[in-house]
Amino acid sequence: MTEIRLALVGLGNVSRAFLKLLSQKITYFSEYGFTLTVVGVATRSHGIATNPAGINPALAIDAYLQGESIEKFHTDKRIYDTLDFIHQVEADILIESMPYCPDMGQPAIDYLISGLNRGLHVITVNKSGPAFAYRQLANLAREKAVSFLHEGTVLDGTPVFSLVRRTLPATQITGFRGVINSTTNFILTAMEEGLPLGDALRQTQALGIAETDPKHDLEGWDAAAKTAILVNALMDGNITPTAINRTGIQNLTTRTVIEATRQGRRFKLLAEAIRRDDQMITRVTPRLLPLTNPLAHVTGTAGG
Amino acid sequence: MTEIRLALVGLGNVSRAFLKLLSQKITYFSEYGFTLTVVGVATRSHGIATNPAGINPALAIDAYLQGESIEKFHTDKRIYDTLDFIHQVEADILIESMPYCPDMGQPAIDYLISGLNRGLHVITVNKSGPAFAYRQLANLAREKAVSFLHEGTVLDGTPVFSLVRRTLPATQITGFRGVINSTTNFILTAMEEGLPLGDALRQTQALGIAETDPKHDLEGWDAAAKTAILVNALMDGNITPTAINRTGIQNLTTRTVIEATRQGRRFKLLAEAIRRDDQMITRVTPRLLPLTNPLAHVTGTAGG
Repeated sequence: MTEIRLALVGLGNVSRAFLKLLSQKITYFSEYGFTLTVVGVATRSHGIATNPAGINPALAIDAYLQGESIEKFHTDKRIYDTLDFIHQVEADILIESMPYCPDMGQPAIDYLISGLNRGLHVITVNKSGPAFAYRQLANLAREKAVSFLHEGTVLDGTPVFSLVRRTLPATQITGFRGVINSTTNFILTAMEEGLPLGDALRQTQALGIAETDPKHDLEGWDAAAKTAILVNALMDGNITPTAINRTGIQNLTTRTVIEATRQGRRFKLLAEAIRRDDQMITRVTPRLLPLTNPLAHVTGTAGG
Repeated sequence: MTEIRLALVGLGNVSRAFLKLLSQKITYFSEYGFTLTVVGVATRSHGIATNPAGINPALAIDAYLQGESIEKFHTDKRIYDTLDFIHQVEADILIESMPYCPDMGQPAIDYLISGLNRGLHVITVNKSGPAFAYRQLANLAREKAVSFLHEGTVLDGTPVFSLVRRTLPATQITGFRGVINSTTNFILTAMEEGLPLGDALRQTQALGIAETDPKHDLEGWDAAAKTAILVNALMDGNITPTAINRTGIQNLTTRTVIEATRQGRRFKLLAEAIRRDDQMITRVTPRLLPLTNPLAHVTGTAGG
């Protein structure tokens, strides 16, 4: 059995669901000859813990959810902060799942760079790194002969990056279009049913699918960050979210949305990219789609 | 440079398009350190040729399309038939692209078994082998430590089998549903526009998307064969097309189809599989879908 040691930065919804899945798949992993041990967890407001013998994920999650510090699971020498954690923890894989960092991707980028520089494989489910510094991170990973993976940043559980890298060799992606933000998609569907935008937004917050800052979804920043990652990773692009031609749904009214449905059309916040000659054209904008377009039928939370 | 030697059984539409693509991607392959050489081609009515130094694909295709025999490209000792070809040809990969073999998958299965037994990697774009003998072929390939690949048998260029095998580890597929036959899908769309079934069928034949025997599409055999492959390869099943609960579209009338659209619904020939406890439930049948279902908007030739 090979032991693979995981270090986690962030213990939010995604990390906790991931740890739960890990415990359900132990038999599967052992069939493939390896075990996974969580040797460190760094959180923003619940402390930091490292233990080379392994931290019990269920106990760490319990403490976290009860508002306690996870430092009682710490057995090593004092660790000062998250960057120090990344420098000290004896792990094989760093998993970063912090909330989005709208300040040009920092501090996530520095964390990812530190992990890669130490020779760790790095996995992020936070859009910040690959949206703002894809080229730098991918090049550093190649130089250090480790993986830099970010599958969870776009389309949730649907493997779009692995799809292209692992199953479409010799294929050049020249463009894409899609619905890639769940919150605005849910809101648009609710508005078609007569709800004002504000009420619809509150529903997405109650469902836990909205970003912390509602502007991030409504103004199209989330879709722009995902578009940047798709363009950088799949189309050999080199752009950041700020470079994307972006219009949100914040100025759409329920009346306009309903009026469109009466004409057999539907608003969707579409993310699009196309390479024309040497130019990369990227856009996030509400588009009126006829109901004959399959994308018009991606409703509710089905958008990724 | 590593030379990879290809032997082709069949030189139909798919094979010819494949050879054209190969010639366009030579630079790409050389970047990865290999060259591809076609060392043998066996056809049903245009002869058989083998040449260890390589057969020029463009010249072989020209001869084939002009109705000539390809035997003028043959340099080796006499080859008697396709099975003899598979036993003699000095190749690394066997690519089988014959038309569908409704007679329980034969002779395709015997050809694939012979290739695997010789230790060749085997690729088929013909549904026959994986639909009627998936388990046997997959086990033999594993025993011989070679690949048995059949990505082109379902959904054309969309990599559904590689998607699961290579990008969804630790995932169990419990079911699927989809539109997987282009011909019937095109016909249903044309019938909604008022065309009788027979005229719509002739359009698909003119487009070159229909199977040789129209019954194969209309009665749902093609969809059943694809369903069997999906179930066998992705859900660890062990079924053949004949075991699938199957109803075709041959008894649908244009009047019925149009009447459905007036009620906001649309007929689709759906392929479905679901595992319930230890039972595998499989079905190919025309289903009336509401227009709110995204599958209702897979129209024309978009079905795979």
